[in-house]
Amino acid sequence: MGSKKGKQTIVYDSRPKILGAWSIAGVKEGEGPLRAWFDQILTDDSYGEKTWEKSETKMLKEAVSQATMLAGLTVSDLDALLSGDLINQLMSSTFMARDLGVPFLGLYGACSTMTESLLLGSMVVDGGFGNRVAVCASSHYSTAERQFRLPLEHGNQRPPSAQWTVTGAGAMIVGKEDLPRAEPVITVDCATIGRIIDTGIKDVNQMGAAMAPAAVDTIATHLADTGRTPDHYDAILTGDLASIGSRIAREMLGEKGYPMDRRYDDCGCMIFVSSQDTHAGGSGCGCSGSVFAGRVYKALRSGELKRVLLISTGALLSTISPQQGESIPGIAHAVALTTEG
Amino acid sequence: MGSKKGKQTIVYDSRPKILGAWSIAGVKEGEGPLRAWFDQILTDDSYGEKTWEKSETKMLKEAVSQATMLAGLTVSDLDALLSGDLINQLMSSTFMARDLGVPFLGLYGACSTMTESLLLGSMVVDGGFGNRVAVCASSHYSTAERQFRLPLEHGNQRPPSAQWTVTGAGAMIVGKEDLPRAEPVITVDCATIGRIIDTGIKDVNQMGAAMAPAAVDTIATHLADTGRTPDHYDAILTGDLASIGSRIAREMLGEKGYPMDRRYDDCGCMIFVSSQDTHAGGSGCGCSGSVFAGRVYKALRSGELKRVLLISTGALLSTISPQQGESIPGIAHAVALTTEG
Repeated sequence: MGSKKGKQTIVYDSRPKILGAWSIAGVKEGEGPLRAWFDQILTDDSYGEKTWEKSETKMLKEAVSQATMLAGLTVSDLDALLSGDLINQLMSSTFMARDLGVPFLGLYGACSTMTESLLLGSMVVDGGFGNRVAVCASSHYSTAERQFRLPLEHGNQRPPSAQWTVTGAGAMIVGKEDLPRAEPVITVDCATIGRIIDTGIKDVNQMGAAMAPAAVDTIATHLADTGRTPDHYDAILTGDLASIGSRIAREMLGEKGYPMDRRYDDCGCMIFVSSQDTHAGGSGCGCSGSVFAGRVYKALRSGELKRVLLISTGALLSTISPQQGESIPGIAHAVALTTEG
Repeated sequence: MGSKKGKQTIVYDSRPKILGAWSIAGVKEGEGPLRAWFDQILTDDSYGEKTWEKSETKMLKEAVSQATMLAGLTVSDLDALLSGDLINQLMSSTFMARDLGVPFLGLYGACSTMTESLLLGSMVVDGGFGNRVAVCASSHYSTAERQFRLPLEHGNQRPPSAQWTVTGAGAMIVGKEDLPRAEPVITVDCATIGRIIDTGIKDVNQMGAAMAPAAVDTIATHLADTGRTPDHYDAILTGDLASIGSRIAREMLGEKGYPMDRRYDDCGCMIFVSSQDTHAGGSGCGCSGSVFAGRVYKALRSGELKRVLLISTGALLSTISPQQGESIPGIAHAVALTTEG
């Protein structure tokens, strides 16, 4: 049973548990600084499929299947599957859910999808509507690039502010009770549902800057709603603001009286190094998806981190909204994870 | 607080209430048999906007605003807004939510979105995560046609099995407590989360046939999970199977031992008559959206109907999945509404 706290924050009174997680990364992502943390790294981004969309579907399917297995369950034990991706009509999530046969709720929050699915999935469990659900998100450089930008074959130049869509997927199983184990139990404590913030940015190569104010709004609201200070958390991680957006977020949060020290980082900055030529850093649902399900999950399991605030960030523009003169709306949802024992 | 019943059904123990609803229909829809039931009928499908996408955004915004007002609330009283539409990246819902400033959860279930948002919104309320939420869905003939089919200017011929995307929107406010009023209170009783059913149909002009097996699966599962028979309900309404799909659904349900008599109907059949040249009938998120929020809501409020099962139906193909040889995955979510008093 849940409750509401402050303006936008929901509290999961029964503290749903993360029972298992699986992260998959593409070739380039697997060459980056997080290589040791991903559960699986592709040796070829096609993953043996004939189209990029089918490769992304396969990543999601594998992530859900493996996370379910690590949770000591089979896919038929899942009460629901909440998933989203960047492909029009959620192609990757849909075909994954079709193949797995689990009751499916499709979500679209652009790159904010990982925390949207985690916060809704935790509601299902905490509200008593199901015992175990899978929450997941994915993106693939080759599906996103051709849909949102230009054909890959075009080989266009990218400005330094551009970000690199991560090829990756993350899946987590949320449930009432964890397996008996020696490691700490990971619980979902509370979440803050973001509202859309649009500061009028129209440059589609400035996604980090467009999303940063939404991340700041959600983090500040979360802290105000819960009465917490940033040092309540061992880590505060935004989704894919990358180098420019995270610098803006840090500055804006400081101005609001929430100074962010070393505990603040951004998954888009963590996943690549500058020598990988990804310009501002990583983006895509699979960025925070694979980093949460890989790096963050393991840090919580090992006891390295005890209290983490995750804030996936999404730029909710469409492929035609900029052509109609619209600016870029940003959104961010925050989920607080805590270990027990 | 909720509970789970059977395989896929969730029970809302606190019985969230529908506090208000608003339906908008386009010009053609307003000339159809439901003209007396829509709260608002456009005199021009552009709704005074310069692009069709902006017209659809405005419909959604108006529907949410009016439904909120009828619920005796203001938009700032809403704890969350759950919405989806057919436009890539949920353009209509996103820009509506940006303008209204309410915490936003974007959903994609193709034409199943109205019951997806209603079932998730009812979870938010029943689970204690919020007191009042808006749930909505929209579609617009002119945005959908050019995205999924051909430019309107092309004037292509349509096969008899084709359906007509409804220009319309529906919004409902779900909350803990209804206003004091003389009419019956409308409560959300339980819901069945659909799984994806794909029987291998590849003809994109046979959407009704592609979705019918998913509707049948969800209805049969709902009845089995709850131990109810079809005559528990005064009306069982699918979303947009239209004439061909609803005939198939009726036949399949009969074969499964659930004969459907006059109480079964389909919103896609209800919204147009054959003289309107819409071929098999209506489709789109706005089809079940406007029919539920208009016709069904008013029938429950007046006491004409007491127990209704709504099953919005979605074809989860993407614009590129048929090009990659994929068949059409269908999904359907069911929500049971009951009146009290």
